[in-house]
Amino acid sequence: MQRIINDPDNVVDDAVKGYRRASPDLYAATEHPRVLKFSGETVDKVGVVTGGGSGHEPAFLGYIGEGLCDAVAIGEVFSSPTADAFLEAFRAANRGQGVACLYGNYAGDNMNVKLARQMAEMEGIDVQTVVARDDVASAPADQRDKRRGVAGEIIMWKVGGAAAARGESLDEVIRLAQKAVDACSSIGVGLSSCTIPANGKPNFSIDPGMMELGIGHHGEPGIEVAPLTDADAMASAMCGPILADRTFENGSEVAVLLSGLGATPVMELNLLYSHVADRLDAEGIKVHRTYIGNYFTSLDMMGASLTVVKLDDELKALLDAPCRSLAMTQ
Amino acid sequence: MQRIINDPDNVVDDAVKGYRRASPDLYAATEHPRVLKFSGETVDKVGVVTGGGSGHEPAFLGYIGEGLCDAVAIGEVFSSPTADAFLEAFRAANRGQGVACLYGNYAGDNMNVKLARQMAEMEGIDVQTVVARDDVASAPADQRDKRRGVAGEIIMWKVGGAAAARGESLDEVIRLAQKAVDACSSIGVGLSSCTIPANGKPNFSIDPGMMELGIGHHGEPGIEVAPLTDADAMASAMCGPILADRTFENGSEVAVLLSGLGATPVMELNLLYSHVADRLDAEGIKVHRTYIGNYFTSLDMMGASLTVVKLDDELKALLDAPCRSLAMTQ
Repeated sequence: MQRIINDPDNVVDDAVKGYRRASPDLYAATEHPRVLKFSGETVDKVGVVTGGGSGHEPAFLGYIGEGLCDAVAIGEVFSSPTADAFLEAFRAANRGQGVACLYGNYAGDNMNVKLARQMAEMEGIDVQTVVARDDVASAPADQRDKRRGVAGEIIMWKVGGAAAARGESLDEVIRLAQKAVDACSSIGVGLSSCTIPANGKPNFSIDPGMMELGIGHHGEPGIEVAPLTDADAMASAMCGPILADRTFENGSEVAVLLSGLGATPVMELNLLYSHVADRLDAEGIKVHRTYIGNYFTSLDMMGASLTVVKLDDELKALLDAPCRSLAMTQ
Repeated sequence: MQRIINDPDNVVDDAVKGYRRASPDLYAATEHPRVLKFSGETVDKVGVVTGGGSGHEPAFLGYIGEGLCDAVAIGEVFSSPTADAFLEAFRAANRGQGVACLYGNYAGDNMNVKLARQMAEMEGIDVQTVVARDDVASAPADQRDKRRGVAGEIIMWKVGGAAAARGESLDEVIRLAQKAVDACSSIGVGLSSCTIPANGKPNFSIDPGMMELGIGHHGEPGIEVAPLTDADAMASAMCGPILADRTFENGSEVAVLLSGLGATPVMELNLLYSHVADRLDAEGIKVHRTYIGNYFTSLDMMGASLTVVKLDDELKALLDAPCRSLAMTQ
């Protein structure tokens, strides 16, 4: 395993230490070693929290900052944070106006957020949740509740974070974060596996010359293993299920988030984007804003995930609002 | 080759198209297909240009923007831009106050910049250059002119770009960019090779369980191939030659740029940083600012490069100035 680590079992704690030392202008410690909070000025507003497994950097810690998340709980690589960690994140983010917990639909996260929320309520902290279910490949449109949350979570944090920053109530932050992630359709394509440091070997396999459409952020099986195509055909394969997932009118406006999965050169993401743009153009869809880069990864997996966000004026204003964090500054 | 491309021979042109489509708020076309210029407001100031081979994304195109570069020429993967491309970048960046061409010390770039500069002078464009030579592994301190330019180039663009943005003269922009890169000492460590799309196979090899200290950004041989250590020892191996390269006093202030080489998870870069910080702490060196992420890569190479920049108040002010680009916004 060619990796930059110490003891493979301590990777997460060692990395958290590094985040804190590298960016004291962003990160402050909390009572829990796997929870960091924003170190900037404390403003009286709704708290925004997320959390999830490690290995998706810059998610989740990279989205702590101004106009984004106030506290983040992380777990082992590809594992949910504990309920205690979520609880500490709620405490760290709470300023008396309640906490919006915006996270992805995975069994462990659902269970631990639920427990943490009960504990927080006993402490008088009002926690409301939005669960991201944007991965179109993980379940059909009529079973949206089974869909996994993937890179659409970033749009949910951005919109929820901007709403909280401008002083909206908890109910309103929740409404807007829910609206944001409901507007997201995402799909991934994997070209290689990835290696969890504590295991030391790839956690699944994709044969050379093949690609897996609809792959999950932890290597969950996709909808099709097919011969590796060129980028043009790959863009079609990714856009197909996304365009079929909701109605786009001629003139619909969208944001496009095209994230590398870890090992894909940014040059190739931009190359792929040009073909995604062709598909959207052909439908008369207007691209309002793009995010192209490594926003939500899966360790050293080769591949990309595409998220298309259908916008209205309300979402556009929140997406365009300024923010500052390790992963996203605008 | 598991990559997101079309024809391997057209990767660069296809990618340039993608950059332009994805970020019209940053990029505008020029007369040359491999030269892009900043699409924002034209301000009367010294033009800042860089250029280099593709495959180092987000360098070089990602540093076009406010407070950074005005025009950038790119070449094939790991190959210099042509003289024509550099010339077109000079034209695109020139607003009558001259052009600072800030690039790295490679034979092809030196030759083509020299030719382009002669052609530009015939057109009445005053071009002055700074050549980055920050890679401590590529030649000893008494042969600095032989050193390659690596990630220290980013510091040179940031400082030169900020100087131009605040209205300094060409002579002053050149002085400050030269001062910035003279203050940089960099070293890379490679844990795997990378694959140039047009070749389709790794361009050199690093055996599993080994690492190459001092590796160049194109896989140029380093100073030592050694068994892969843990991150703590790797930080020592990288900091040693950097700390030996110049005098640091107790209380010296530095900026630290720790860039992934393409396939290294950002989690591991932060983990590695924590040990780099230990080494600097032990010398009484104060870290003023960090840049941790994928700033200057080598396609899908696993590994990292470390740049330590010795600061004074003049450099600090320029490094801290705001900027906006795909690769760096602050």
